[in-house]
Amino acid sequence: MTSDYTFTLDYYKDFYRRQLLEDTVPFWFPRSIDEEHGGYLLMRDADGSLLDDDKAVWIQGRAAWLLATLYNTVEQRPEWLEGARKGVDFLRQHCFDTDGRMFFHVTREGKPIRKRRYFFSETFAVIAFAAYAKASGDEEVAGEARRLFGQCIEYATTPGILPAKYTDTRPAKGIGIPMIMLNTAQQLRDTIGDPHCDEWITRWIAEIERDFVKDDIRCVMEQVAPDGSIIDHFDGRTLNPGHAIEGAWFILHEAKHRHNDPHLIGLGCRMLDYMWERGWDKTHGGILYFRDVYGKPVQEYWHDMKFWWPQNETIIATLLAYTLTGEQKYADWHKQVHDYAYSHFHDKEHGEWFGYLHRDGRQSSSIKGNLFKGPFHLPRQEWYCWQLLQNQI
Amino acid sequence: MTSDYTFTLDYYKDFYRRQLLEDTVPFWFPRSIDEEHGGYLLMRDADGSLLDDDKAVWIQGRAAWLLATLYNTVEQRPEWLEGARKGVDFLRQHCFDTDGRMFFHVTREGKPIRKRRYFFSETFAVIAFAAYAKASGDEEVAGEARRLFGQCIEYATTPGILPAKYTDTRPAKGIGIPMIMLNTAQQLRDTIGDPHCDEWITRWIAEIERDFVKDDIRCVMEQVAPDGSIIDHFDGRTLNPGHAIEGAWFILHEAKHRHNDPHLIGLGCRMLDYMWERGWDKTHGGILYFRDVYGKPVQEYWHDMKFWWPQNETIIATLLAYTLTGEQKYADWHKQVHDYAYSHFHDKEHGEWFGYLHRDGRQSSSIKGNLFKGPFHLPRQEWYCWQLLQNQI
Repeated sequence: MTSDYTFTLDYYKDFYRRQLLEDTVPFWFPRSIDEEHGGYLLMRDADGSLLDDDKAVWIQGRAAWLLATLYNTVEQRPEWLEGARKGVDFLRQHCFDTDGRMFFHVTREGKPIRKRRYFFSETFAVIAFAAYAKASGDEEVAGEARRLFGQCIEYATTPGILPAKYTDTRPAKGIGIPMIMLNTAQQLRDTIGDPHCDEWITRWIAEIERDFVKDDIRCVMEQVAPDGSIIDHFDGRTLNPGHAIEGAWFILHEAKHRHNDPHLIGLGCRMLDYMWERGWDKTHGGILYFRDVYGKPVQEYWHDMKFWWPQNETIIATLLAYTLTGEQKYADWHKQVHDYAYSHFHDKEHGEWFGYLHRDGRQSSSIKGNLFKGPFHLPRQEWYCWQLLQNQI
Repeated sequence: MTSDYTFTLDYYKDFYRRQLLEDTVPFWFPRSIDEEHGGYLLMRDADGSLLDDDKAVWIQGRAAWLLATLYNTVEQRPEWLEGARKGVDFLRQHCFDTDGRMFFHVTREGKPIRKRRYFFSETFAVIAFAAYAKASGDEEVAGEARRLFGQCIEYATTPGILPAKYTDTRPAKGIGIPMIMLNTAQQLRDTIGDPHCDEWITRWIAEIERDFVKDDIRCVMEQVAPDGSIIDHFDGRTLNPGHAIEGAWFILHEAKHRHNDPHLIGLGCRMLDYMWERGWDKTHGGILYFRDVYGKPVQEYWHDMKFWWPQNETIIATLLAYTLTGEQKYADWHKQVHDYAYSHFHDKEHGEWFGYLHRDGRQSSSIKGNLFKGPFHLPRQEWYCWQLLQNQI
């Protein structure tokens, strides 16, 4: 790290702490705690007014994770612990089906609306339970986190165990599974520990490197055939740069944990480099949502919109890459994406960020929370960057 | 109809015929006929180059319907009949699962990729089979159309017969089912006939009027509770103006068929009026994709984009409303949406229309065909409007 940059890093450290604690977290809490039914009421408009009292199970878990993590790492505020408990209890009481799998979308009271074929509800419950178990010392919840993580491993490694969306005609696998499992294992290790985490993390990183990272074309694929080959159809060609960059920083985080492992630093930085080149919008700024690996048109309608979370993941990845390598380009990219994001997404009137902008930066929707957006990517980014610059990570 | 408008209607009549036969149809055919495997190769970029050789089952049926309908109503060109046969054979040979239901997405060779919970593949196969049976005189295909229509009626009227996407916690029904069944029955009646069509058409129109049309708030709902009440959550509040306007013209078409039935003219015109008010973009022109019934933000990301097909449906509905009522406002609306659509969507270089524009009319994608777009809404609109003005409908 170049020493004349210290002043700038101090600025960022204070900025992220202040945004997190004085802007983002106060937008959501305490008003989103559902005192009547437990869990959180998070589907909110720009000014915080409630648009829908349904509960998205992913986001319930993520919000409980956030509150418990703040309690574990920032300050032992009783309302954060109590808030986390409200979410953990709601998840345990209402969000599991009789087959042990979790729902995706429930009513305010916790009645199921929709169950999906994926197990992301489960992975977010694992990190919520683990962080809460650390905060509270509740051994039963810690056991539940470990048990559920084992169930996720079974889902991730047993072909055919979950209902399939597609037939077997053209088998494919997504980078999402190894990525989420890698990060879930990291969270588990950082909170309550699990003897198998390191081994699993190594395996999932190896799978990403072997099957999804294509050095010859400087690309990280979102979906590939089981042998890692590119599937030359719409879905197989579709790249998700913000998602791949999130994967990059999970690997850089692991590199740091493993005493600056040079191989992992190299892998994470290559992934970031490739997907910055493909995802950064040189015309308007910001990370685009989807790109085609061969530059062809993308089928998804919102391909050229700017969503909030790819910017959050890129802010983390560039800062982490800079602190690990000292390369000036990462400091420059961090400033670029930071400046773009906080000037375009941040709601200076009511706090927090808008979620959805058009390519040119105009706002598409005033929504702050819905089935897919809640208190996660933004506060996680502000928390992670602050903690990183404070040498707590 | 005011007589001084005759000249303008003659202009439109010639315009739609010319666009259909000299621009739209030649973009797709003959090049899209798959001589090797049957069916059609329709996933094309602006210049006609193939982006993906997969086959969308909806669109295979729709393209076969188009070719057979051109043969039945425009001119008995052998290549149209032969082209329709290629699609009908592909559907019959490759697109049915062993349980009698149809797939949604297959490979070029006809191997299944994905089956969905809906039966729209089946309804489009019914209209393809029926139009082809009329063109060819093939009684076996006519029988297949009737049998499959009976199966669709069973799917539409038997709760729980198809796998559910949602739980029973908050039951809902969409306007899509009565709409598609109404139009499928109309097509069957117009080609090979079926003694039950009129009765079913009457029932589905009654369901739309009773449960989806809300005169008190001047709105046509896209989704309601089984008793027709509004579900005050994101999905229940989401309106699809172009879709409701398509429903309006199906009903106006029925009004015309029933010797200008005044009740049906009134119903169709109210639906058009309500959804023009809610869907027409007064700032940039064109019909918006989604609106919230109470003006709240919509959850779907592409809510404020302009898609091709809502414009096609509105061009038909406004022209039909004008020819049935003579009201000047419908002539004005027809001109507005016609001028907007042909100036923004039409590809003057390569023919056909682009599918996806941003709200302000800038192009979002150069795609002409994909899993959802093919030779249907645009050529149907040009064919219908031409035939209507030629007094053939």
